[in-house]
Amino acid sequence: MTLTNTACRLAARPTGLPKPTDFEVVDEPAGVPADGEFLVKVEYLSVDPAMRTWMNAGRSYVPPVGLGEVMRAGGIGRVIESRHRDFAVGDELFGTFGVQRYAVSDGKDVTRVDTTVAPAPVHLGALGISGITAYFGLLDVGRPQPGQTVVVSGAAGSVGSIAGQIARINGCRAIGIAGGQDKCRWLVEELGFDAAIDYKAGDLRGQLKVHAPNGIDVFFDNVGGATLEAALARLARGARIVICGAISQYNADGELRGPANYMQLLVARASMTGFVVFDYADRYAEAVAQLADWLRSGELRSREQVIHGSVGDFPEVLLALFRGENTGKLVLALNGAN
Amino acid sequence: MTLTNTACRLAARPTGLPKPTDFEVVDEPAGVPADGEFLVKVEYLSVDPAMRTWMNAGRSYVPPVGLGEVMRAGGIGRVIESRHRDFAVGDELFGTFGVQRYAVSDGKDVTRVDTTVAPAPVHLGALGISGITAYFGLLDVGRPQPGQTVVVSGAAGSVGSIAGQIARINGCRAIGIAGGQDKCRWLVEELGFDAAIDYKAGDLRGQLKVHAPNGIDVFFDNVGGATLEAALARLARGARIVICGAISQYNADGELRGPANYMQLLVARASMTGFVVFDYADRYAEAVAQLADWLRSGELRSREQVIHGSVGDFPEVLLALFRGENTGKLVLALNGAN
Repeated sequence: MTLTNTACRLAARPTGLPKPTDFEVVDEPAGVPADGEFLVKVEYLSVDPAMRTWMNAGRSYVPPVGLGEVMRAGGIGRVIESRHRDFAVGDELFGTFGVQRYAVSDGKDVTRVDTTVAPAPVHLGALGISGITAYFGLLDVGRPQPGQTVVVSGAAGSVGSIAGQIARINGCRAIGIAGGQDKCRWLVEELGFDAAIDYKAGDLRGQLKVHAPNGIDVFFDNVGGATLEAALARLARGARIVICGAISQYNADGELRGPANYMQLLVARASMTGFVVFDYADRYAEAVAQLADWLRSGELRSREQVIHGSVGDFPEVLLALFRGENTGKLVLALNGAN
Repeated sequence: MTLTNTACRLAARPTGLPKPTDFEVVDEPAGVPADGEFLVKVEYLSVDPAMRTWMNAGRSYVPPVGLGEVMRAGGIGRVIESRHRDFAVGDELFGTFGVQRYAVSDGKDVTRVDTTVAPAPVHLGALGISGITAYFGLLDVGRPQPGQTVVVSGAAGSVGSIAGQIARINGCRAIGIAGGQDKCRWLVEELGFDAAIDYKAGDLRGQLKVHAPNGIDVFFDNVGGATLEAALARLARGARIVICGAISQYNADGELRGPANYMQLLVARASMTGFVVFDYADRYAEAVAQLADWLRSGELRSREQVIHGSVGDFPEVLLALFRGENTGKLVLALNGAN
């Protein structure tokens, strides 16, 4: 019996926000694993801002998704057929399986998911790439010292919410920037941020002055644009800006907006550094062990917003992400037989 | 007998390029040194792009020059009257004496100039703040390794011409960006740069691709704007951008231009760091000793463009700087009795 795969393929390179017609959702025979391969049934898809950048042509930290190719996505799935000696039917795995129901894998860059530690969606969030990104971005690139002020943009998102908590755990003053009062309340009341600023309420610069009176020592940026400029205007001497993402720019229609006041880097003797979590692959285990410890002790909290749907819902869920509708990690759980 | 001082005072905060009416040149009685002070007759003025930034209101790495105040400038002058135990008549000194003929000083932040080592203008250039800026900016912030590619913008200027030579001395491939074929020839034929790119000839990005085929490891930026964007587009993995200046932006009329493609910092896992040479004050002697050694051995070449004139010529000389008319260090030598 041949299984039918549903795959979401990139049909066109979007301009601005992705449109439904930028994707093509197709039913097709599932792949058949050869020797040394196995077949995974994908159960959870990680929905991330960076996906938008993978849809563009041009130089980036990964090759663009090709037109006609299955949209790239991290996911968790279960092995349902195996011709690989290291992977058995029933194994729960994380991998870049793509936005599709069934994926063939040779096991490269695939990791095991221990759902006795935490439910699967957490392994896409706090214990997955999001948490690992926050861990190395903040600690390795941002290098915050106890007592310093750490400001995180996109703070209610999957990476930002973890980064701010790691700052707090490390004895820093953690300030989040997020959109809306509900998210801000969650950051302060549930996650223990010292303060949260609702950028939608306006006067971000004034609010940063109130909450970071001695300036920002580490700015962990997921947003870019006016948010980055507001942070640049409040840097403490020797500040580090960690460039993790720029969600405000990913769907820009016209010219991208660079930080007009970047010369504040000179005024503050500050640095702005980009990083890519994949470079830390040989240290992922260290991050995951520490994040799991913090989760167990209750010092770190994880939140996943799980949307139940099908592969065909992916384009709409991605748009929900860009509308800022998620709090915490956005996950698309694939239900049903197919 | 009271001496008459000629002083160039800031009369208005310029919009765009400074106008003659932004300055007021006044004759007034020279100051009279009190106990612990001395009087300097200023002989050479350092003319620098950063001066333009000092004329703006707002937060920077030094307070703005106040309206009505003597325009700030580094200079070299001779003590002609002293009531200070450490300074005697005839001493040749560097200090921030301002754009004026006579200055009273208490000796703070003043250093002695040894004209047996090199003529006075060199102590404003290669052996002065320009050379020291190049030294620490390149070596301490840029941290180039032998064999790496170092690109310097504003390469025919006072700082850039030294930075590129230090890169070459340290075994790097040194590439300069400058305006015009004469400057480019000078960089390659006289200063030993490996290549020079005339940005006025167009296609800066294409030329960077030709001359830095493996990417830029260190970009020492004095220019900003489109030049910075071109360099960002060519970064090697792990590159360091040293933010020394942004002369293309200092006289901008409208909104400042931030680097639209700053997310290349992420793609390249690169950093962009601002610095201010004043932070290295306790290591100036180390830099000057090394720079003087290189000058003596002929490894480093210094060039000063000395304009002979009066205090009243300062506004026009500053404009010549922004028109890119200088090659090497621009110095205004004050002549005549006053």
